[in-house]
Amino acid sequence: MSDPTAHVLDQVVALEPAGEHRFRGSTHEAWANMVGPFGGATAATMLNAVLQHPDRHGDPLALTLNYAGPVTDGEFFIEARPVRTNRSNQHWVLEMRQGDEVVTTATALTGLRRETWSETETGPPEVPAPEDVPRASEDRGVRWIGNYDMRFVTGGWDDVAGDDGTTTSTTTMWIRDSPERGLDHLSLTALGDSFFPRSFLRLGRPVPAGTVTLSIYFMATADELEAQGTDFVLGSVHAHRFHGSYHDESARLWSRDGTLLAVSNQLMYFKS
Amino acid sequence: MSDPTAHVLDQVVALEPAGEHRFRGSTHEAWANMVGPFGGATAATMLNAVLQHPDRHGDPLALTLNYAGPVTDGEFFIEARPVRTNRSNQHWVLEMRQGDEVVTTATALTGLRRETWSETETGPPEVPAPEDVPRASEDRGVRWIGNYDMRFVTGGWDDVAGDDGTTTSTTTMWIRDSPERGLDHLSLTALGDSFFPRSFLRLGRPVPAGTVTLSIYFMATADELEAQGTDFVLGSVHAHRFHGSYHDESARLWSRDGTLLAVSNQLMYFKS
Repeated sequence: MSDPTAHVLDQVVALEPAGEHRFRGSTHEAWANMVGPFGGATAATMLNAVLQHPDRHGDPLALTLNYAGPVTDGEFFIEARPVRTNRSNQHWVLEMRQGDEVVTTATALTGLRRETWSETETGPPEVPAPEDVPRASEDRGVRWIGNYDMRFVTGGWDDVAGDDGTTTSTTTMWIRDSPERGLDHLSLTALGDSFFPRSFLRLGRPVPAGTVTLSIYFMATADELEAQGTDFVLGSVHAHRFHGSYHDESARLWSRDGTLLAVSNQLMYFKS
Repeated sequence: MSDPTAHVLDQVVALEPAGEHRFRGSTHEAWANMVGPFGGATAATMLNAVLQHPDRHGDPLALTLNYAGPVTDGEFFIEARPVRTNRSNQHWVLEMRQGDEVVTTATALTGLRRETWSETETGPPEVPAPEDVPRASEDRGVRWIGNYDMRFVTGGWDDVAGDDGTTTSTTTMWIRDSPERGLDHLSLTALGDSFFPRSFLRLGRPVPAGTVTLSIYFMATADELEAQGTDFVLGSVHAHRFHGSYHDESARLWSRDGTLLAVSNQLMYFKS
């Protein structure tokens, strides 16, 4: 069902209709993570079910993904149901299944946007241009990293080997798809989950960890995403607290000119 | 069904079983907002369906609420379905209906927590003790405010009358239930939505606004909530961006001793 000549992101999010409110898709080896696929690819695939749905009303505003269990390599089905359509927005409930097992649940919100007072109150940190930051190694033991050009400004993968860990959980990086691809809601969704776990940084070593729930809010309108083209996105993420097997992560993604494109929040399980 | 001698929060969240995975509840006039009930009360009521469910496994970890349409005064039904139960956590899908209409959807996550490395990386701002801050007026034209003792440190309701608005969307306040009530997951959920819209502050006037989606992550374990008792919680909230009819809000709630109890994020609709 996926076109092998398409961009690797478009291959992994590809879906074919499989009945009313139902779509069939398949995992893709280029997006493999430690266990199952990269969560950002799963999130983008779920959003694509909304985008492909004939009854969709408006652009994506928000998406919440709950990772209920590991996605096994191979086929899956997504049910995407518009449960309420208002004049200016629409509420969606989604579920991904493999066999009888629910592997992912989600809710999404689409809607129409009008011109209003507009301001990015939280601008990006002061950082060098992406051209002045070396591209990070793809050698992190998981295949999906190869689909991105990541350039760490602070809190990079090298700091995970720091034994005692770092005193802050912040990572700031430039990132874009590799090969390059024009930014849209799908790629932005995947970027929202592209940071390695904050526990790795604070503990100074990789530990068992996984996202349990992720919410992304699309702060940019479609015209702004279009204007972004294939340029780098600046991402910055940090955790507020680590406690009792869980920590949060709060990320912001800006365009090069400082427009806030999206905010992404998640709760992660970790062992220490 | 709700006990009129119970605390007003326990009255509004009260549910009675109405079939498998199904509960009946009712709005409560003491929680009235501009249109329908205070969203925090609705969120706490949805969470209570999970807490009341006989199959629940573990404490609340995360809750995402989507406000699909106005809740009408009167009766409603909540369906709360555990869609996947793992060894250490459980995933829930919820829906609130009035008649045939879906008014709220939600997902929730409960789970067991173990001792791990623990740290509040983001501590509270420097603020005076709640005893040194005057209690804010309850006169904001909506009834639910009267259920809280709010003490604004910065970005208070008085700043909404500022004509030109403020240059930052931050509000920091001490807050607790009034009358006092021991903190638990229900009251903490409601507190996570207790800030007035950030658009009011930046625009210097109340404007039509409403939460469309809200996620709360419970960073505190049950023992920490228990230890909190009826003491004030310190909340701080700000928006990252306002654009095209929507803005985000990011809130943190700490105990007096600086333990991060919860983080809460939401996307709000606004007109300007």
